[in-house]
Amino acid sequence: MSINRESAVHSSPAACDAQALAERVAQAMFDRDRASQRMGMRIVRVAPGRAELTMTVREDMLNGHDICHGGFIFTLADSAFAFACNSYDLNTVAQGGAIEFLAPARQDDVLTAVAEERSLSGRTGVYDVAVRNQHGETVALFRGKSYRIRGHVSGAS
Amino acid sequence: MSINRESAVHSSPAACDAQALAERVAQAMFDRDRASQRMGMRIVRVAPGRAELTMTVREDMLNGHDICHGGFIFTLADSAFAFACNSYDLNTVAQGGAIEFLAPARQDDVLTAVAEERSLSGRTGVYDVAVRNQHGETVALFRGKSYRIRGHVSGAS
Amino acid sequence: MSINRESAVHSSPAACDAQALAERVAQAMFDRDRASQRMGMRIVRVAPGRAELTMTVREDMLNGHDICHGGFIFTLADSAFAFACNSYDLNTVAQGGAIEFLAPARQDDVLTAVAEERSLSGRTGVYDVAVRNQHGETVALFRGKSYRIRGHVSGAS
Amino acid sequence: MSINRESAVHSSPAACDAQALAERVAQAMFDRDRASQRMGMRIVRVAPGRAELTMTVREDMLNGHDICHGGFIFTLADSAFAFACNSYDLNTVAQGGAIEFLAPARQDDVLTAVAEERSLSGRTGVYDVAVRNQHGETVALFRGKSYRIRGHVSGAS
Repeated sequence: MSINRESAVHSSPAACDAQALAERVAQAMFDRDRASQRMGMRIVRVAPGRAELTMTVREDMLNGHDICHGGFIFTLADSAFAFACNSYDLNTVAQGGAIEFLAPARQDDVLTAVAEERSLSGRTGVYDVAVRNQHGETVALFRGKSYRIRGHVSGAS
Repeated sequence: MSINRESAVHSSPAACDAQALAERVAQAMFDRDRASQRMGMRIVRVAPGRAELTMTVREDMLNGHDICHGGFIFTLADSAFAFACNSYDLNTVAQGGAIEFLAPARQDDVLTAVAEERSLSGRTGVYDVAVRNQHGETVALFRGKSYRIRGHVSGAS
Repeated sequence: MSINRESAVHSSPAACDAQALAERVAQAMFDRDRASQRMGMRIVRVAPGRAELTMTVREDMLNGHDICHGGFIFTLADSAFAFACNSYDLNTVAQGGAIEFLAPARQDDVLTAVAEERSLSGRTGVYDVAVRNQHGETVALFRGKSYRIRGHVSGAS
Repeated sequence: MSINRESAVHSSPAACDAQALAERVAQAMFDRDRASQRMGMRIVRVAPGRAELTMTVREDMLNGHDICHGGFIFTLADSAFAFACNSYDLNTVAQGGAIEFLAPARQDDVLTAVAEERSLSGRTGVYDVAVRNQHGETVALFRGKSYRIRGHVSGAS
């Protein structure tokens, strides 16, 4: 994982702390996340409530129509969603998600998923993820609903 | 793939043909579907508008919360959906899908996804998939929307 | 409201009590539900985890395309969902819902929504609702997610 | 309907024409849309791919829990979606929609729905709608999928 520290504008010590926490949590989560690792995902950047991941479509990700299995596009989006909604170091899981497939992804396409928080109140949140290819075309739009459970993501506290 | 031929009740030559076609298409699709193969999926049975697949949760499918990545549960459901909606040998792709995660899946759990057609009119269809574990607990409920494109799944024009 | 008491098969005193409770709750809810009343909805039958409602498409339910506004089809489905998920007399609200519109509904069409429980564990449930017209054609498929809050629907206790 | 003409920045004759078309189409649609009218909706502004509507929660919109029936919140969002996706004067209908209810709406709340185009390619589009109350709190998030059919919204051509 290479987290792009330049990406965040730190306007205050509190924002700076929140950004540092988001990066630390992402690193800790990713180290344990064998699923995202084996898919070849990389974290481009994280911030409080946000995450950007990339994944290259491999030959073994193709389905019977010779395009990337929609499940793996969902998986990329779902990972971006997970890094975004866990960025406050409060254990949070997906209640569900919905995806619209807008264009096929093909072998060697480099997909980027950008997750953004739309709502967070009480224990539930809504996050939108756009998945685009290397040409900037939108491949899929995902919306996930999160639910906070007990505990922290990092071992700390 | 082992297709359970006993599962279908063949009440007429037409139903018998439709069943044989569904099985032939599933075999052809699965042979090309590297994604479903690498996930270790197996087709239990198919029928016109229906499909049942299984997948065992492997260690490399676990996320940072040490449970099966939701994306892979979606992928299993999405594959079952794909085999069901392509069972008429008319090329059909997913427009989108939504999933509700009801219970976590853990390493070595054996998941079974049963896809059933709810609606098919014109080029669009709606399919429901229930994913259950080896104890019969429902792990996730998926609903997919399909869209028929040109061509046939099998090589036969 | 006319609840069809014949619709339920009472195999035990407990089932009988559950059915009676579902009917009592539905009556109490409907009496307070000005929204469903003004839409002209009628409860055909309720049972634990199930509800069936009808609504006739009126002229003032038509949108700019001269077909029934999708929002009112959703509203009918959402009401059926609400009666089904509150049938245990435990206050339950909708977290969200998704609908697929399969065929247009026209003025004077008589729509019937049948809600069925797909899952209920802890405080959350998943309910499917099919909306059909007087010819038995499926107009829409709805899936709702419920969340139980404090209190009872009926005044009792 | 009062369309806020000041809301659009007209940077070119083409943009100016698109804005004028969007406003003309909205007026024509709204004049025929008995459903939105009877709900007391008002169009605040429209633009190509965008629409903003308001609606006040009336006593006859309350459900059995004494809060605004979720179906009517969906209806408001669905109308905003409809005005946004028809703004190019190409007849477009909803394939489906999903809504997350985030906070209850109460009698006399003034709800505002802002619809924005997220994707439009070929005949299908994705639109997001946020519904907020008079305090700026997000009441619901809606995502709709549109499908273009034949014909124009306005009588023209």
